[in-house]
Amino acid sequence: MPDKLIIAKIGGKVIDEAEKLSVILKDFADIPDFKILVHGGGKKASKLMKQLNIPVKMINGRRITDASSLEIVQMVYAGLINKNIVAELQANHCAAIGLSGADGDTILSHKRPPAEVDFGFVGDIDSINTEVIIKILKNGFIPVFCALTHDGKGQMLNTNADTVAAELGRALSSHYEVDIIYCFEMQGVMQDINDPNSVITYINQEKYAELKAENIISDGMIPKIDNAFAALDKGVQNVFIKHYSAITQKESGTRITK
Amino acid sequence: MPDKLIIAKIGGKVIDEAEKLSVILKDFADIPDFKILVHGGGKKASKLMKQLNIPVKMINGRRITDASSLEIVQMVYAGLINKNIVAELQANHCAAIGLSGADGDTILSHKRPPAEVDFGFVGDIDSINTEVIIKILKNGFIPVFCALTHDGKGQMLNTNADTVAAELGRALSSHYEVDIIYCFEMQGVMQDINDPNSVITYINQEKYAELKAENIISDGMIPKIDNAFAALDKGVQNVFIKHYSAITQKESGTRITK
Repeated sequence: MPDKLIIAKIGGKVIDEAEKLSVILKDFADIPDFKILVHGGGKKASKLMKQLNIPVKMINGRRITDASSLEIVQMVYAGLINKNIVAELQANHCAAIGLSGADGDTILSHKRPPAEVDFGFVGDIDSINTEVIIKILKNGFIPVFCALTHDGKGQMLNTNADTVAAELGRALSSHYEVDIIYCFEMQGVMQDINDPNSVITYINQEKYAELKAENIISDGMIPKIDNAFAALDKGVQNVFIKHYSAITQKESGTRITK
Repeated sequence: MPDKLIIAKIGGKVIDEAEKLSVILKDFADIPDFKILVHGGGKKASKLMKQLNIPVKMINGRRITDASSLEIVQMVYAGLINKNIVAELQANHCAAIGLSGADGDTILSHKRPPAEVDFGFVGDIDSINTEVIIKILKNGFIPVFCALTHDGKGQMLNTNADTVAAELGRALSSHYEVDIIYCFEMQGVMQDINDPNSVITYINQEKYAELKAENIISDGMIPKIDNAFAALDKGVQNVFIKHYSAITQKESGTRITK
């Protein structure tokens, strides 16, 4: 039987609040299986851009990454957040090693061609270097990926953190029994967003179709769940959407399977 | 006979100018031996601090790193510069992996206790994790260290890049035949700073004493050479002070030996 691999993705508000981040890092450090952490950016990049008078351009909730924005994103994601997370994981006796997709050539992408929208320095993933990542894992290191990739020609590119987690899961599922955990501020996918006891504990394709038909799943959650099913289709075993404090609790949040 | 290990340190102006940096990275990628790159910061951190109205505090040419400065240094060194270097090395088919001292717990330091001057979040190195660095090298990766370390308790610390290179050399000299190359804008240590043909090709302790007595070696070079002799005392074989374009040229620059 292949070894278990947990890929946990954290982002947004969890990263902005040191105490919440500490909770999740402590729990993550305790996971006994092979594991990878993927982190997004939080608000720091936008805040810094504002302070430097760099306009923050968003279309449909997605950042347009021009050259100045890429510089900021690279500094905040790979420098500030990634190293703070790695240092705190080390303090929790977790042998973390911070990576972008350029480090060890782990994630290769290409600059998204301009179509209706030119997203700028945004990378769509071409391939995951499973050989290198497996080598890193087998050597006892815990990869901590920030949401940056490279094009192999010297250019760093900004890539959505949910997608990085999903693509890592898909690629590594041929070698490991992979679970992806998306950690956030809610208890899971909710039947009623105002009722914390209304977590939908299990979603498969059939249930998902029902929930969408009944308008129970909101717009923001749909790309997350679509992403989850795409990963499941390529061999990922389970995708969980969980509260950030429940990462090690088996019976919590929403479990998505085929 | 132990394997050869080249530790190249680049800093200052070489980092600020993309074309010069490209020259050195291309040459570095061609070095056939085990190798490590250590980089400093250049002017970007000070520039960014100015833009953000964070006062740049220097005493005797050394930066005072308060909390805001550490944030900037971390972003610029570990995020912007480190990842740009790694991406460009990858484009040169060099299996680079960017590291701070927190990554893989490679360099442990302690916050320098305030004495006459409180340097703030500056780390003095306690230990180099040779086991982890050798593992990384043996796996075929090329470590690219930025000048940041950690205290093992979750705190990142700013550490002088020359010192990082020297300490790596000292620690790894029990496993490798180590050469350290300090790369900069000059042809080497100069007899006459205005004459590019006056490179002093060889310095040992005796010659160093003479050069100091004759005031030929300037103030800025003294800590560099002292650092070099300290590394040689602990087992490093050669220290070179070279022009950034001559990293792979054996007969160039100044060679320092015991």
